[in-house]
Amino acid sequence: MNAEIISIGDELLIGQTVNTNASWIGRELSFIGARVLKTTTISDQKNEIIKSLSTIGPNTQCVIITGGLGPTKDDITKQTLCDFFNTALEIHHPTLDKINEYFAKINRPMLETNRKQAELPRACQILDNNYGTAAGMWFEHDKVIYISLPGVPYEMKGIMAEEVLPRLNTLFELKSMYFKTALTQGIGESFLAELIKDWENKVFEGNLSLAYLPSPGIVKLRVSSYYGEKDKSKIKLIFDELETIIPNYLYGYEPDTLPSIIGQLLNKNELTIGTVESCTSGLLASYITSISGSSEYYQGSLLTYSNELKTKLAKVSVNSITEHGAVSETVVREMAEGGRDVLKVDVCISTTGIAGPTGGTDEKPAGMVWVAIATKEKTITKKLQFNGSRERNIHMTVLSSLNLLRNSLKA
Amino acid sequence: MNAEIISIGDELLIGQTVNTNASWIGRELSFIGARVLKTTTISDQKNEIIKSLSTIGPNTQCVIITGGLGPTKDDITKQTLCDFFNTALEIHHPTLDKINEYFAKINRPMLETNRKQAELPRACQILDNNYGTAAGMWFEHDKVIYISLPGVPYEMKGIMAEEVLPRLNTLFELKSMYFKTALTQGIGESFLAELIKDWENKVFEGNLSLAYLPSPGIVKLRVSSYYGEKDKSKIKLIFDELETIIPNYLYGYEPDTLPSIIGQLLNKNELTIGTVESCTSGLLASYITSISGSSEYYQGSLLTYSNELKTKLAKVSVNSITEHGAVSETVVREMAEGGRDVLKVDVCISTTGIAGPTGGTDEKPAGMVWVAIATKEKTITKKLQFNGSRERNIHMTVLSSLNLLRNSLKA
Repeated sequence: MNAEIISIGDELLIGQTVNTNASWIGRELSFIGARVLKTTTISDQKNEIIKSLSTIGPNTQCVIITGGLGPTKDDITKQTLCDFFNTALEIHHPTLDKINEYFAKINRPMLETNRKQAELPRACQILDNNYGTAAGMWFEHDKVIYISLPGVPYEMKGIMAEEVLPRLNTLFELKSMYFKTALTQGIGESFLAELIKDWENKVFEGNLSLAYLPSPGIVKLRVSSYYGEKDKSKIKLIFDELETIIPNYLYGYEPDTLPSIIGQLLNKNELTIGTVESCTSGLLASYITSISGSSEYYQGSLLTYSNELKTKLAKVSVNSITEHGAVSETVVREMAEGGRDVLKVDVCISTTGIAGPTGGTDEKPAGMVWVAIATKEKTITKKLQFNGSRERNIHMTVLSSLNLLRNSLKA
Repeated sequence: MNAEIISIGDELLIGQTVNTNASWIGRELSFIGARVLKTTTISDQKNEIIKSLSTIGPNTQCVIITGGLGPTKDDITKQTLCDFFNTALEIHHPTLDKINEYFAKINRPMLETNRKQAELPRACQILDNNYGTAAGMWFEHDKVIYISLPGVPYEMKGIMAEEVLPRLNTLFELKSMYFKTALTQGIGESFLAELIKDWENKVFEGNLSLAYLPSPGIVKLRVSSYYGEKDKSKIKLIFDELETIIPNYLYGYEPDTLPSIIGQLLNKNELTIGTVESCTSGLLASYITSISGSSEYYQGSLLTYSNELKTKLAKVSVNSITEHGAVSETVVREMAEGGRDVLKVDVCISTTGIAGPTGGTDEKPAGMVWVAIATKEKTITKKLQFNGSRERNIHMTVLSSLNLLRNSLKA
């Protein structure tokens, strides 16, 4: 089944609201095995709506329209659909009863504009809205289904889940699309592609699709099949092979995250953790504690931004700072080892660097960072170099540190 | 000038990624006075791209296309544009030089796939990308401008700001809109609207436009004029009045941020600052240090997630924790005062709360937070209650704490 989504609303076009409805509907349709060919966002204008409805693709069997069903004057979708399908509005009594009940419940008078929401096109099936006063509509015309839903995400999602998805599933006997998304850190998209090009060929030979989804510091690899669950084991095997090719980059699969995987490793090994941060100044700790229940393993941190606090709190020697500078392998090592002792944790991770844009020198340019991980057995250190904005350098440091930590925990 | 936006990417259609690019571009185009008629999202398939390019509306003068410019096999936009505009790829030497420089700087070998990114259509103007290796492209065809940009938001925004928007502005002689955006924290959109409705009427009477731009914890108020700079002083006066109405909520104007304003206040008063954090676990410190040069006033922090570290590092008394619990006014006060002493800072801000979703009780539900600010003169405390996700509660705590700090510094 092929679908298109039409979102109606000026607030979407001028970017005042991000169109999360279209992505939500896209995800839900994909899950039940429908294929979204196109999504379009248009203005609250009759001619624009008519034009979009008139130009849907020849392979589209279902059009989902959101927005423009509210009680105010600028909500024109319902009347426009009547014109397009050559029908008229009439009172839909079950909907009127529901609206009456709703206003009785909240103990407010019902306005004429609310009564008008029960006027619905004669030529459609009504889709119950249990979350608001704007009913959904289901039209069938020239073998295409047109579904009109309110733009309020909460109401739209309710009608989709309770009415639309079950009906579509039955009607089209849909196979669900199956996909799995691997997460990689520490390698850019093009280097990754180069490294796994033989594997990539195997994905295509297996009639599977592959997408690279890059974001700062992380590249996701999504392998999908339109043959649904029956390709599940094939996709698992293909990712098992990938794990042997890039074990240090591939850190897990959605919906896991670096912090959740680190949490699992720490819990499994019964280890506690703390951080001593300079340039990341708390962002590393805030990632680790983004997981509910992280208090099982995370104890606390020292954020030693000034050199005084590096020596006072984390026991870094004054000599090391004077001799090597605060951004140095010696200091980052002492921070991790001192922090492990002071915080009384099994694992301590430390960062010190020049986040930029100011503060860099020829020898130590902005974006240069040292990371260390101290455990009972040993301390490892790593030097990193980034070239982004201050925010980006800090963010990249955190992701790289977390992946370094993951690799050291699983080793 | 009328524009359309075409976003290319399966990840957008299946809802794996929300299309924030289209809304960002929509907002920027609106600001310079262009009108976005339509946005379309399509699959990474040649025929879909060609179809979209062939069906743009008769009134559209500019089409902005994002996505599909990466170095991997699934990136087909560049070749498709060549086919559509009947041109061919050739090496663009300035771009090749830039890519070479980039890889020299990060000290990595340049791959063949990266070299291919310098192969660009002969029939277009190249738009410099200072944030990555995929250049932007500017085609002109039948009096319509077609602009192709990478889908990575960071790179797309850079090329838009540095190349596309200035060119469009000049070419179409767009009216330069003047606007100023005030920033408020601590009050929801509808309460704010109620509080400032008389002021709002004055804005409209002055032939100015007002937009509410809400995001979690912050509502921005943008007042704009299509008459350009000549309304600058009028807009200043209207905001001066607003400052007297909501002094505790209105914290500044774009491009300032809460951390930048706090930095200015600390520098002006020659004060140093530190934090003692439990539930925010470093996010508060990372906000404060988001400002380059924050080492002038920010010294460091204690992240005392466990009760042991609250007593050991921040000198909170064991009795206070036993008697009142870790999330209490007594403990948050002791954290701020202990931190002020240990970190040797003039101002110390502390947080303790239940971020959720687990860990709440009837008496202390998830989302309940205590904040304290200790100075030489006094310690103030405040109890907050949020009802969002873990991430949202932490984020809201940080913003509220920073605004509380701002109000106490300016007092």
